[in-house]
Amino acid sequence: MIHIKSQGLAPELHVQSWLNTPEPLSLSNLRGKVVVIHAFQMLCPGCVSHGIPQANAIHALYPSDEVQVIGLHAVFEHHQVMNVEALKAFADEYRLPFPIAVDEPSTTGSIPQTMKTYQMRGTPTLIILDQHGYLRLNHFGRLTDMQVGNFIGYLLAETKKPLSLSQSNKSPGNQHRPKIDDDTCLI
Amino acid sequence: MIHIKSQGLAPELHVQSWLNTPEPLSLSNLRGKVVVIHAFQMLCPGCVSHGIPQANAIHALYPSDEVQVIGLHAVFEHHQVMNVEALKAFADEYRLPFPIAVDEPSTTGSIPQTMKTYQMRGTPTLIILDQHGYLRLNHFGRLTDMQVGNFIGYLLAETKKPLSLSQSNKSPGNQHRPKIDDDTCLI
Amino acid sequence: MIHIKSQGLAPELHVQSWLNTPEPLSLSNLRGKVVVIHAFQMLCPGCVSHGIPQANAIHALYPSDEVQVIGLHAVFEHHQVMNVEALKAFADEYRLPFPIAVDEPSTTGSIPQTMKTYQMRGTPTLIILDQHGYLRLNHFGRLTDMQVGNFIGYLLAETKKPLSLSQSNKSPGNQHRPKIDDDTCLI
Amino acid sequence: MIHIKSQGLAPELHVQSWLNTPEPLSLSNLRGKVVVIHAFQMLCPGCVSHGIPQANAIHALYPSDEVQVIGLHAVFEHHQVMNVEALKAFADEYRLPFPIAVDEPSTTGSIPQTMKTYQMRGTPTLIILDQHGYLRLNHFGRLTDMQVGNFIGYLLAETKKPLSLSQSNKSPGNQHRPKIDDDTCLI
Repeated sequence: MIHIKSQGLAPELHVQSWLNTPEPLSLSNLRGKVVVIHAFQMLCPGCVSHGIPQANAIHALYPSDEVQVIGLHAVFEHHQVMNVEALKAFADEYRLPFPIAVDEPSTTGSIPQTMKTYQMRGTPTLIILDQHGYLRLNHFGRLTDMQVGNFIGYLLAETKKPLSLSQSNKSPGNQHRPKIDDDTCLI
Repeated sequence: MIHIKSQGLAPELHVQSWLNTPEPLSLSNLRGKVVVIHAFQMLCPGCVSHGIPQANAIHALYPSDEVQVIGLHAVFEHHQVMNVEALKAFADEYRLPFPIAVDEPSTTGSIPQTMKTYQMRGTPTLIILDQHGYLRLNHFGRLTDMQVGNFIGYLLAETKKPLSLSQSNKSPGNQHRPKIDDDTCLI
Repeated sequence: MIHIKSQGLAPELHVQSWLNTPEPLSLSNLRGKVVVIHAFQMLCPGCVSHGIPQANAIHALYPSDEVQVIGLHAVFEHHQVMNVEALKAFADEYRLPFPIAVDEPSTTGSIPQTMKTYQMRGTPTLIILDQHGYLRLNHFGRLTDMQVGNFIGYLLAETKKPLSLSQSNKSPGNQHRPKIDDDTCLI
Repeated sequence: MIHIKSQGLAPELHVQSWLNTPEPLSLSNLRGKVVVIHAFQMLCPGCVSHGIPQANAIHALYPSDEVQVIGLHAVFEHHQVMNVEALKAFADEYRLPFPIAVDEPSTTGSIPQTMKTYQMRGTPTLIILDQHGYLRLNHFGRLTDMQVGNFIGYLLAETKKPLSLSQSNKSPGNQHRPKIDDDTCLI
């Protein structure tokens, strides 16, 4: 079941290291933005085929001052080969455009610390925080793009700011323009 | 450009006849719901490959007391062959689950009346009204499912009701449950 | 079950009228070519979403002096609305590039004459003749592109001519060139 | 350009180690079968999204005594993280069903030995041998499933054995049966 009601203030991420960001991020510094955390493993097929393209689409659709996408590499198996160096190669090959946190390994078991804190059941898991830092979604498995867009739109509306996707300065911003070809019949 | 700001009260549809509904619908009777109107032509390839599956997905995702999907058959070319009988066969073959309005033909030209009223540029066009009946989106061409979900979620939030997609009593409600197979890696 | 063994000389098509060709075609005049007949109905969803794109792909891939694609509009239901005028609009909107035969209606029932002659079970049906005019495949339902390519390649090889897809003078001929972008990793 | 004409006897693979096979394979022992070699890197996005699903589809479609699929892990970058242990995790997570050869690293440079021998330009590369062991295709980049099926069908026909895909004893053999649902319109 999907909980969009607040589940309290989201706990901070436990991060071993960061990729794709000059400075570490902290959830407490992201108040005012909807925060979307995509927890994945680089060798999880469902993450690669579905979760990461969806995270990329979120990053591309929303202005960076409204929605912050964070990748969380939450490794609970094959730890030896899904290490930070491998993740760097993966992020480079897949050209991931958003900051990526490497979940802090457990000192006692296979489940890393953020994964345990959020009681994740596996990967991919999508976590969404509202603009006040409250946990609003913690979902294991696949959601459609329509469901994800719905959640984010719902949370963005809570600030009462008029929504304007056209302010986005990120590619592919031109997805807003109708493609006049196979997609449409013009009068 | 996409306008999510209100463009005033949405004008009523001009409808020749209805399919898939025991009674004609009127926009004024749909206050309290977000209304999504998918204007299409049955022989428009972009409508068939993209717009109609998207309308079906909206219909399946949202509870019927929160979002009302309406198809609008807005024929501006090939009028002879895209008649009501042909539309009935089309709606039957494609098993369209939502009410469909046949746009009232013009007495003077090729553009039907609702299409002209809304100044549509062609098909597919997606029109979204908020719960007060105000026109919030009037978009020609293709939008991604994430964009559409975003708009609807934004409008649903304006009523301040806590959102719960799990109340949906329509199939495929099970899309909320994670598929434990190729899509996920379980702990 | 798929029969690729010869099932005898393929019977001629019974054709009410032709689209997309200056002259009627006859199977007997196509000896020396593999002939691919895609039987469809314009309001059959599986034909529109899968069969017709596959027929387009066959038409685009093979040189026209080696493989002849023919559409066969085999209407067995909704006869009133899937008439020749409607088909012309459909072929125009979908920009079908190959000749289309309209199956001759029955004088006694709903199944048109070619459909009955070939004992088709419905649409889409894919019929493939070898270069000698023998019936080699008569398949109801969906085949993958790999299966279809396999059949055609098999039949082309029977003439012992060295195969060269690069002789194709039809777009999209550039599908043979590797796309140097997301698809590949260059040394 | 695609060469389907023979380019001479295919040189043997230089293999560091094998996965998914009890015994090492050698091309010389595979005479009588069409051999399809899919050269890939586990962190090459185009290989993962397109090449590997295609290799899986070839493996599933053809009987194992007619077509032998071999994966070739040809690492020319990020050698440290695309090692054998990482490949084992990858092959396990993606459930690759065919034998995989690890290309023998070069002692002097980044390009592994089989890759150099076959003058590959990158990954994915598809190599196809005929039943006599002759090299018939050596293609860098993406080919459609129809193109690949066409090549294999062409080569299988050269033995003059009547083709029958229905002999396949591998799943998903049921892809040959028409799905009676959204895909078809039954008489």
